[in-house]
Amino acid sequence: MTDHKKQRYKLTVEYDGRPFCGWQRQADVPTVQETIENAIKAFCPNDDILVQGSGRTDAGVHAVGQVAHVDISRPMTADKLQGAINFHLRPHAVSIVKAEAVSPNFNARFCAEQRHYTYRIINRRAPLTFERGLAWHVRHPLDVRAMHDAAQVFVGTHDFTTFRAVACQSKSPIKTIDELSVERIGDAVLFHAHALSFLHNQIRSFIGTLKLVGDGAWGKTDVVKALKACRRDALGLNAPPDGLYFMRVDYPE
Amino acid sequence: MTDHKKQRYKLTVEYDGRPFCGWQRQADVPTVQETIENAIKAFCPNDDILVQGSGRTDAGVHAVGQVAHVDISRPMTADKLQGAINFHLRPHAVSIVKAEAVSPNFNARFCAEQRHYTYRIINRRAPLTFERGLAWHVRHPLDVRAMHDAAQVFVGTHDFTTFRAVACQSKSPIKTIDELSVERIGDAVLFHAHALSFLHNQIRSFIGTLKLVGDGAWGKTDVVKALKACRRDALGLNAPPDGLYFMRVDYPE
Repeated sequence: MTDHKKQRYKLTVEYDGRPFCGWQRQADVPTVQETIENAIKAFCPNDDILVQGSGRTDAGVHAVGQVAHVDISRPMTADKLQGAINFHLRPHAVSIVKAEAVSPNFNARFCAEQRHYTYRIINRRAPLTFERGLAWHVRHPLDVRAMHDAAQVFVGTHDFTTFRAVACQSKSPIKTIDELSVERIGDAVLFHAHALSFLHNQIRSFIGTLKLVGDGAWGKTDVVKALKACRRDALGLNAPPDGLYFMRVDYPE
Repeated sequence: MTDHKKQRYKLTVEYDGRPFCGWQRQADVPTVQETIENAIKAFCPNDDILVQGSGRTDAGVHAVGQVAHVDISRPMTADKLQGAINFHLRPHAVSIVKAEAVSPNFNARFCAEQRHYTYRIINRRAPLTFERGLAWHVRHPLDVRAMHDAAQVFVGTHDFTTFRAVACQSKSPIKTIDELSVERIGDAVLFHAHALSFLHNQIRSFIGTLKLVGDGAWGKTDVVKALKACRRDALGLNAPPDGLYFMRVDYPE
């Protein structure tokens, strides 16, 4: 153990979720959190290293801008820290894209003001090549205008019991969705979701539901009905993790 | 053998080049051409199947719009053919994104009027995650304006002996480059190259040279000197295949 005063760092993290059983450390399975903690322990063997993320991601979910914080007693610049963690992360598909020294008051989870996710469907007949595990492949044409319109049912403050996993640990099913938009760019159908926080599986439950609307199987009134039901078994479909990306977290200046 | 008159099909092909030793069939190594031929032979066992591409790609080079043609005696619609090939291509990262019945006069290689390639550098300090093998990772900042300016040296008709592989089988080193542009989009530096045809390794030789310009190691006059030298050993650098994508082929209406 050392007597150095510890410095807190904010880390911005990108990862390919395919090889991981999610962010959160668990016994006997590979997780992103443990992978980063082990990389830091390699050059900070005397610290108890705890990497605290702004939020968990499920197995197979990706990130380009997950944020975490960590306290380290070994004196080093944020630039050196970034390089050292990335060196020890090899060969894992996890990368520290930014490291910043921050005040001990910064908390990646509790200071977050807005979380941004994007979900990607590749909507074409042909099988995927580059995008396997990186998008949801839907073969028949989706009605993106109807999906965007139905998505607005979720915007605002609602009881989202229908759209949370049974295992969800949140005390309340009530959340406020600030934005949920759907756009087509070529073969890709992109969903953008912004909120202070989300329930477990909430975005994937939204996407699965909106896919039914894009199919023509559900109308907007079915979506309203599912929301009002406040029962998990009223959910039409949960989307696979493949297409979900944790994009960004906003913090106060 | 069958007596059916054969129908010619134009295939538009996407592939992840990472697992393949290039397009062109060779003994004892996996190639894209042979992979597609084997997929077709699975449901056309009586035909001699030859899939002729519009051009070869090297090991590790990708395509989103390679074009090929093939003659098949078994009667089937282009849609059925696309589905059948894609079914038998599994689990390879090769996908027929379009199939069209065409006249026997169509030849993927000899009818091509313009070939379009894009090369992608990811220009950032942090290691790659999703993009491994799908882009060239360059850590220090590149001067994209200087690269675009120097790229114009290659546009037009020149003797490109410096910029062709020693193994290049083209009769003449003289080619006409119609466009070579460089742009930055976020962390990505994208090169767009259009020409009737290219020499073996020509685009990767351009990109390697322009990377030296982006580094500040070479000026535009060094590029002119290398071009005028007409000697392969005047080449500064050959870029890795990872970032190269065969995007599209134009044919006459």
